[in-house]
Amino acid sequence: MDLANYLASRRKLVEEALEKVVPPPGAFPSIIHEAMRYSLFAGGKRLRPILVLAAGEAVGCPADKLLPAACAVELLHTYSLIHDDLPSMDNDDYRRGRLTCHKVYGEAIAILAGDALLTAAFGVLAEEVQVGCSPEATLAAIRELALAAGSQGLVGGQVVDLLSEGGSPEAELVEYIHRHKTGSLIRACVRIGGLLGEATQDELERLTRYGEDIGLAFQIIDDLLDIEGEFYYTGKATGSDAKKQKLTYPACFGIEKSRQVARELVDRAASTVEELGEKAWPLKAIAHYIVERKS
Amino acid sequence: MDLANYLASRRKLVEEALEKVVPPPGAFPSIIHEAMRYSLFAGGKRLRPILVLAAGEAVGCPADKLLPAACAVELLHTYSLIHDDLPSMDNDDYRRGRLTCHKVYGEAIAILAGDALLTAAFGVLAEEVQVGCSPEATLAAIRELALAAGSQGLVGGQVVDLLSEGGSPEAELVEYIHRHKTGSLIRACVRIGGLLGEATQDELERLTRYGEDIGLAFQIIDDLLDIEGEFYYTGKATGSDAKKQKLTYPACFGIEKSRQVARELVDRAASTVEELGEKAWPLKAIAHYIVERKS
Repeated sequence: MDLANYLASRRKLVEEALEKVVPPPGAFPSIIHEAMRYSLFAGGKRLRPILVLAAGEAVGCPADKLLPAACAVELLHTYSLIHDDLPSMDNDDYRRGRLTCHKVYGEAIAILAGDALLTAAFGVLAEEVQVGCSPEATLAAIRELALAAGSQGLVGGQVVDLLSEGGSPEAELVEYIHRHKTGSLIRACVRIGGLLGEATQDELERLTRYGEDIGLAFQIIDDLLDIEGEFYYTGKATGSDAKKQKLTYPACFGIEKSRQVARELVDRAASTVEELGEKAWPLKAIAHYIVERKS
Repeated sequence: MDLANYLASRRKLVEEALEKVVPPPGAFPSIIHEAMRYSLFAGGKRLRPILVLAAGEAVGCPADKLLPAACAVELLHTYSLIHDDLPSMDNDDYRRGRLTCHKVYGEAIAILAGDALLTAAFGVLAEEVQVGCSPEATLAAIRELALAAGSQGLVGGQVVDLLSEGGSPEAELVEYIHRHKTGSLIRACVRIGGLLGEATQDELERLTRYGEDIGLAFQIIDDLLDIEGEFYYTGKATGSDAKKQKLTYPACFGIEKSRQVARELVDRAASTVEELGEKAWPLKAIAHYIVERKS
């Protein structure tokens, strides 16, 4: 199988599973379920859930045992996008080429849709035990997700991102933002796959380093796409970081150096998981895909 | 021991435990931890965590095994207050006699503080297993909390509450709002105490009915306090429901009838837990306290 087929097959599994974990659009009160679904089924790449699957599969766990966790990280990711886009935060009108949640449903419903998706992420993850994972591993995965998403993880990254708008580009600050706002959830995806797949200590350490490297590379490429990307591919306005005076990697280190750092990170990530053997090939391929993507 | 002593001693346990589950105010990024703590330590009655303890103790579980769960429900309750108070929601300037979170820290930080508290609730609850509860019971408690707080629980109640502002008072709608916005979390508190305390099926059913009855009674009394209460006791502006044209129980049924329904509910709740024996005395006393409270 090549990467395109792997991504397509795993994405299909994730889409089918996601369809079942959120109440149907008509369920009362319908507006909240419509808003949750509007953002959840907006054509995302499903990179984070696929990382859960690929990491678990790399340590010998079948994909179907990892699906609740895969859904959980996508629910959580979607909540973070909805809240980040709010007028009091990044104030974005478009996301993936469509109007953002609050532009369609209003601010109150968008906040509540995010709240409900975040809540559902933990409820769904707690169901891991019902597809055959051990209760201990399931609880470890829940603690991992809470830590990655909390005030010293994703939320902390968003706080520093907001506070540093308009400030001078400082390497330490931009690295903090990237490692927390984007990196911590990507790291958690890989670790959750490993935890549920009962990885050994050595395997889990390799997965962790892999996750940290691709997480930072992913956000550097995101910054570059914001400068160089096209709306056709990215679905959002190019140059919006500069307009908002966001701290970005290229603003600190320049475009060439940023691209080089991203390449080095994914090369190192790919060789870190080499030791996990043949079953880790999708992780290796995903690392390279991250620097080559156009959206 | 009488109820006042029981509440004071359990509240002390909860305060001490809460102090440890949130990063210290100086932890980076400090503004988010200050905002979380501002709302968490705003002088709440800690009714919900005490219900977790009282329900668990009623089925023979020692209070110290229930403290992470007690903290979790208070973190979750605090998140819901912060988000409810936001300008796009209820737009409240005061809560418990102090400025609301967004009035002090701004809207973005208030939203993120709520997000971080909600996330922390699940992380803390997953630590139940580390104080001696079984992993299976811990996972059941997590699923219980997610269901109670989600789009068909607390968030659903808030959605219907917002949508029905200014509408004509309909008994069915006001009951939906009260049973979801307030009732579902109170019901979950009691059930979580029971689940972690390894209650029998019969005990859990009694706790559930108790929780449903006191949850509805609690909100009816809240509505009445909004009409008749004094700022000195309640810490918020009286008459704010009427000003916002909120659907309330008294608006549907009148003040006298509302008070009577609340009394009947707590009487029934108290007799439901009679069967649990002597250890359930705090649950009985709390039921009566709910209709007698002034704030």
